[in-house]
Amino acid sequence: MHIGLIGLGRMGGNMTTRLREHGIEVTGYDANPAVTEVASIPDLVAALPTPRIVWVMVPAGKITDDVISDLGASLEDGDLIIEGGNSRYTEDLKHAGELAPKGVDYIDAGVSGGIWGHENGYGLMVGGSKESVERAMPIFDALRPDGPRDEGFVHAGEVGAGHYAKMVHNGIEYALMQAYAEGYELLDKRDDIVKDVTGTFKAWQRGTVVRSWLLELLVRAMEQDPEFEKIDGYVDDSGEGRWTIEEAIENGVPVPTISASIFARFVSRQDESPAMKAVAALRQQFGGHAVKSAG
Amino acid sequence: MHIGLIGLGRMGGNMTTRLREHGIEVTGYDANPAVTEVASIPDLVAALPTPRIVWVMVPAGKITDDVISDLGASLEDGDLIIEGGNSRYTEDLKHAGELAPKGVDYIDAGVSGGIWGHENGYGLMVGGSKESVERAMPIFDALRPDGPRDEGFVHAGEVGAGHYAKMVHNGIEYALMQAYAEGYELLDKRDDIVKDVTGTFKAWQRGTVVRSWLLELLVRAMEQDPEFEKIDGYVDDSGEGRWTIEEAIENGVPVPTISASIFARFVSRQDESPAMKAVAALRQQFGGHAVKSAG
Amino acid sequence: MHIGLIGLGRMGGNMTTRLREHGIEVTGYDANPAVTEVASIPDLVAALPTPRIVWVMVPAGKITDDVISDLGASLEDGDLIIEGGNSRYTEDLKHAGELAPKGVDYIDAGVSGGIWGHENGYGLMVGGSKESVERAMPIFDALRPDGPRDEGFVHAGEVGAGHYAKMVHNGIEYALMQAYAEGYELLDKRDDIVKDVTGTFKAWQRGTVVRSWLLELLVRAMEQDPEFEKIDGYVDDSGEGRWTIEEAIENGVPVPTISASIFARFVSRQDESPAMKAVAALRQQFGGHAVKSAG
Amino acid sequence: MHIGLIGLGRMGGNMTTRLREHGIEVTGYDANPAVTEVASIPDLVAALPTPRIVWVMVPAGKITDDVISDLGASLEDGDLIIEGGNSRYTEDLKHAGELAPKGVDYIDAGVSGGIWGHENGYGLMVGGSKESVERAMPIFDALRPDGPRDEGFVHAGEVGAGHYAKMVHNGIEYALMQAYAEGYELLDKRDDIVKDVTGTFKAWQRGTVVRSWLLELLVRAMEQDPEFEKIDGYVDDSGEGRWTIEEAIENGVPVPTISASIFARFVSRQDESPAMKAVAALRQQFGGHAVKSAG
Repeated sequence: MHIGLIGLGRMGGNMTTRLREHGIEVTGYDANPAVTEVASIPDLVAALPTPRIVWVMVPAGKITDDVISDLGASLEDGDLIIEGGNSRYTEDLKHAGELAPKGVDYIDAGVSGGIWGHENGYGLMVGGSKESVERAMPIFDALRPDGPRDEGFVHAGEVGAGHYAKMVHNGIEYALMQAYAEGYELLDKRDDIVKDVTGTFKAWQRGTVVRSWLLELLVRAMEQDPEFEKIDGYVDDSGEGRWTIEEAIENGVPVPTISASIFARFVSRQDESPAMKAVAALRQQFGGHAVKSAG
Repeated sequence: MHIGLIGLGRMGGNMTTRLREHGIEVTGYDANPAVTEVASIPDLVAALPTPRIVWVMVPAGKITDDVISDLGASLEDGDLIIEGGNSRYTEDLKHAGELAPKGVDYIDAGVSGGIWGHENGYGLMVGGSKESVERAMPIFDALRPDGPRDEGFVHAGEVGAGHYAKMVHNGIEYALMQAYAEGYELLDKRDDIVKDVTGTFKAWQRGTVVRSWLLELLVRAMEQDPEFEKIDGYVDDSGEGRWTIEEAIENGVPVPTISASIFARFVSRQDESPAMKAVAALRQQFGGHAVKSAG
Repeated sequence: MHIGLIGLGRMGGNMTTRLREHGIEVTGYDANPAVTEVASIPDLVAALPTPRIVWVMVPAGKITDDVISDLGASLEDGDLIIEGGNSRYTEDLKHAGELAPKGVDYIDAGVSGGIWGHENGYGLMVGGSKESVERAMPIFDALRPDGPRDEGFVHAGEVGAGHYAKMVHNGIEYALMQAYAEGYELLDKRDDIVKDVTGTFKAWQRGTVVRSWLLELLVRAMEQDPEFEKIDGYVDDSGEGRWTIEEAIENGVPVPTISASIFARFVSRQDESPAMKAVAALRQQFGGHAVKSAG
Repeated sequence: MHIGLIGLGRMGGNMTTRLREHGIEVTGYDANPAVTEVASIPDLVAALPTPRIVWVMVPAGKITDDVISDLGASLEDGDLIIEGGNSRYTEDLKHAGELAPKGVDYIDAGVSGGIWGHENGYGLMVGGSKESVERAMPIFDALRPDGPRDEGFVHAGEVGAGHYAKMVHNGIEYALMQAYAEGYELLDKRDDIVKDVTGTFKAWQRGTVVRSWLLELLVRAMEQDPEFEKIDGYVDDSGEGRWTIEEAIENGVPVPTISASIFARFVSRQDESPAMKAVAALRQQFGGHAVKSAG
């Protein structure tokens, strides 16, 4: 099998390597001339056997929109686009709708695993027609982890289902990370009692109820920098967590831990909190409580 | 009526003034020689008509413990202590138990109203025997706001009930403040849409569902310093909010907004968050996400 | 002044009465033939002096869309629509954009006060041009509470600002209600300590930090039915709270108490919680913990 | 090595089996005559070689207190008690203090792994003196999972540190479970989009960021009963989660996801929510909103 892959950044580059290691021929295109293997999207399309398959792995939003639009202009009836970025599922409905009149098929693929995916394989959640998914299965089998297919891959539903599942996956991920972090902060605060905090997390890796891959990564991080002295507690978010909450709200589903995780990230990025200034101002008004002057 | 009052700080001092304005004779004692009116607690006790009433208005914890212990040593059968500080209700059970063998009665009084109490009167929640409360009623009537007694005073139950009610009052207060503060931050963030944020809060004072005394105080604060530029978003807490959550947990009562309010205050006091460092470290581990170096 | 008002339900009907009591002539239209005063929207338009003012007070969403579309078709250059329903501010941008080519002006008005507005006046937050707002000021003055205009009315900004402010108002309102409710539940649970729960809330009405109009309403409800025996704990929401959270998320503003309030309402409407079934299932898997069989 | 073990219930029984399988001789005592191997605690003590080691594995609280008191009365200078139940760490300080004058040593051991521990080994966190822990190491090595010792065992600190670490472990565990459960509910609600919910969770087991042992157990539960039809969403808690929050509050550590998890369990156990009745009552008061009648 010979496919195209657009976006040779950290994720796309690693995936290309894994695909090739598993026998898939890949021609890669990137807007960055230093890394691209063909000069343009039309050149990429021209280089592929028909019917073509092109995996798109670029930043969500306008860049994905533009790439799919450009790619759609060059592809033909029977070709297939697999969109593997961190897009919102509503984008997939739009993209698939735009491509359908040309007869270009569309799969959305949620890809989990980060920089470890090259080595471990990527967890995959895909949405699309049965025919498209079957056709692309050699690609999914190359990318997914070793072991039973259904433990690292799911055909979750029609177009959009892959990114919907990935969105929820990331919402859960945010809350899991926050849970470990809260426990860490409490142990760190009481290191007069639990004197070996790193050792405690390390010891949770086997046998305990909280063992997980995230825990292993946290241990790895703690072993490199036990007090996180080299790391600032400023945490970005990549969109899926926010969308999870918006979906939850739209569907009347309570998500207190996922929302708490996002809010903690928002706060982490504030130099000062307007809300807490308001609370301080209120306390001063009614209680004559001392406030700290901004300085 | 002539009573003693121990603790002539901001609250105790204002209360003394209001009591005197309403015809209660007060002899005040304070550990600070610059403000005390008698030299010692025994002198205070000696100065009062029997059976005596002494209102204790000192910081909760060891100071209250010590004052009640000293006072108990000087008082006699039939005397009455009213403990008006921000004590946990379990302290009242202890204090009343220690005083009972001597025949000294005990009332715990939750006092709300802050520095405005002198002018507006204080909202009062008291716990104790029917006889004690009736005996002290002239004092409560002097301190409470004008209007129907039952709109500013309640005999909530036996000893401890006053401080229990005050604890819950403060738990609610924390969440109310946080609610307004969250709304403020959102409006402040979108002042490209709502151009008059102060004016909006000001306009909520009459007719709206959210009108309250806290809202009026917030408007007052905003009129003095619309962007809270002179105020640091560092917010202390005085204990009752924490106890509310502990009581809720012990009694299986969900208190998500009250706990969110307390946690927001905890975060407001952190220079850096160990938890968010851990989250940032985790993201770096699995995603190769850039982190901000501490510096 | 003589205006039209569309929507003679609970809110619109009360507002019509208050407007007339304050000297504004009102012709009312409602889709319900039993209450309407004219046969159709064109008849309403025909009955009004030019340039016309029509207040629209119908359910948000499709009904408001349809009414504004029908009304726009009958109105002329220089006429003014005031949209007073619970619409999202993005709807206002759409409506104003549709009406602008015809020269029809547009104001969005957030109206707070519920069924008490007739008697107390309505808190008003409006968005629109300076000229439009000035022109409609006699209407706002009739509707708003007595007292200084700026304590019950704000011209918050351009079109959309009124409903944006109202949205945040309602977000705050949700959290305020939840705060009192949490305190109530804790006191109710420990009525062995605080024996007079209704009396405690009643006593908070004067002097305390938590006094508010919502508190007064809660006391009123408790006096009618102290244990809320006639009321089911099933709580709807009308949209603004959800939008507040969506706006907060989009703007990176942490709103833990507002989101906790919404989630509590979601849970209140569930017969059974899929999430908690999952937690119960998990506990059974790892701990052999007994589960309650669904039955 | 030959030790005593008190408490032959689900946990203690499984541990006894694993200890014996790993070459530790165990004499077991249980208050239940049907399962005990000796008639009484003094008989157990008499059956052990000196200096003795006795592992106590009974329900936390009064039962643990009584067993340790009885056991302490029979043990002698140089003997060692290992308390492996779900006790609060403050209990350990009390127990160790009571035993010290007799020269009886004390270790507190947090034990994680549930019913799977027999097969997988138990994650262990222990507190006590270096000498005591070294002496008991053959027991810990028999109980802990295969693999490097420090990935399933930690000597966390002095007496109390083991149960402190276990408490935080369980606090984290609660939040992890809730995180997956929230994601499950959202996917379950939108099974019109993600048509294979069980398959999606199944596919997260390899390669994804959210893979964990809890996830594997959830998949196992879903495969047995995909919609959790046989399970009621009523979730108990065993204490450690509550203590985690209490510790967090005492130490000023924000724990929003852990507290949200506990509150969700509290709500899951309520037939009706007093708080939500209060909110419904409030809405009816100000808005004339319809309420559902109880009954």
